[in-house]
Amino acid sequence: MRYELYYWPHIPGRGEFVRLSLEAAGAQYVDVGRLPESEGGGRPAIVRLLQEPNRPRVPFAPPLLKAGDLVLSQTANILHYLGPRLGLAPEDEASRYWAHQLQLTLADLLVEVHDTHHPVAKSLYYEEQKAEALRRAANFLELRLPKYLRYFESVLEANGSEGGLVGAKLAYPDLSFFHMVEGLRYAFPNAMLRAKPAYPRIDALHRRVRDEPRIGAYLASPRRMPFNDKGLFRYYPELDP
Amino acid sequence: MRYELYYWPHIPGRGEFVRLSLEAAGAQYVDVGRLPESEGGGRPAIVRLLQEPNRPRVPFAPPLLKAGDLVLSQTANILHYLGPRLGLAPEDEASRYWAHQLQLTLADLLVEVHDTHHPVAKSLYYEEQKAEALRRAANFLELRLPKYLRYFESVLEANGSEGGLVGAKLAYPDLSFFHMVEGLRYAFPNAMLRAKPAYPRIDALHRRVRDEPRIGAYLASPRRMPFNDKGLFRYYPELDP
Repeated sequence: MRYELYYWPHIPGRGEFVRLSLEAAGAQYVDVGRLPESEGGGRPAIVRLLQEPNRPRVPFAPPLLKAGDLVLSQTANILHYLGPRLGLAPEDEASRYWAHQLQLTLADLLVEVHDTHHPVAKSLYYEEQKAEALRRAANFLELRLPKYLRYFESVLEANGSEGGLVGAKLAYPDLSFFHMVEGLRYAFPNAMLRAKPAYPRIDALHRRVRDEPRIGAYLASPRRMPFNDKGLFRYYPELDP
Repeated sequence: MRYELYYWPHIPGRGEFVRLSLEAAGAQYVDVGRLPESEGGGRPAIVRLLQEPNRPRVPFAPPLLKAGDLVLSQTANILHYLGPRLGLAPEDEASRYWAHQLQLTLADLLVEVHDTHHPVAKSLYYEEQKAEALRRAANFLELRLPKYLRYFESVLEANGSEGGLVGAKLAYPDLSFFHMVEGLRYAFPNAMLRAKPAYPRIDALHRRVRDEPRIGAYLASPRRMPFNDKGLFRYYPELDP
């Protein structure tokens, strides 16, 4: 199967979680949003898929995955679909619900990270909600981030040494978790550096994913977009004292 | 199967989305959080399940569903599991991903609704973030709520007359959508009254679910909790001018 990923071309965003699984599996895929418009890519290709007037089951927002006739949206839903097909999900049903549950918890955390710099409205600039962002980010670093880090560390501890979040074999939530750690380190370098000694298993899983050959090759390639000041993870020094 | 639902007893909250599907199907279930502590219920029963030291795969937060040996969390994950077992999900795989995708979009909207009154921090009282809430709620009513309502109206329109969000037969996202409309009407009565004429299909689906015999009986029973000022949906007149 040759998959098509549709995601905004200017940020890693939610598309990156899908991209990492496709890359880790060596899957064939086209990153349509990053193709030139002259080749049928870019933002217009995404907007077309969101607005096709005669298509039922129109998605609300990207990322979108086209797999044959199927068009899926919602990052966790896409990964729930792709996981087994890419060899990145466990075999038994109970473990698949567990993997999906972890992915949904990561999705919750992602919204909280985004809202540290956009607590009032997506439609306003950061500068228009900076006062609110300072309050929200401080609370996030004091209470919410430690709660999530403690949780994921405890999951890894329960799974024993060498394990990922789902089991011994790497699964798609591990790849998403890697990207979450990358993003948190980009957005909150001071807080994450202070936290590091308390979460050795999180650090070990991050390194393990980074050192996977296909992931290493991907990270070194131009297909991997750097974080920037338009994305979900943003670095504003005043939010990370 | 006799299911056990674990959710905080003082608010409808996210547990209500699970409850509605169990009720619509006439399923056997115990609402453990609402049992007296003397009968093994209440908050201590939930906390025990969240903190069992020897259990792997501990969930991050309620609602939790116990189905035999399986313990699931994340509302959309629970409904994805329950849907087919309760006869509230479509038969084919593509439609199941579509149902799940709708549920996840409702989950996104739910976070946005919650954050209208808690834009800074869950750990602070509304009164401590009222200034921020006024800004966030105004933006939500101006841009975000219409975007979601337009989206769901267009999904219903594409499905044709008499249809729910997934197809002709009621499915679990329809039940969740009913509760979303109920909650929005509670929290933003003025905005929802102004919006009503523009979304006839949303109104029709709301009435259709309300008039289902099992749902009607449930809504009239003490098992249905009223909305209140501790929950996800809250009524603050100043946020709904």
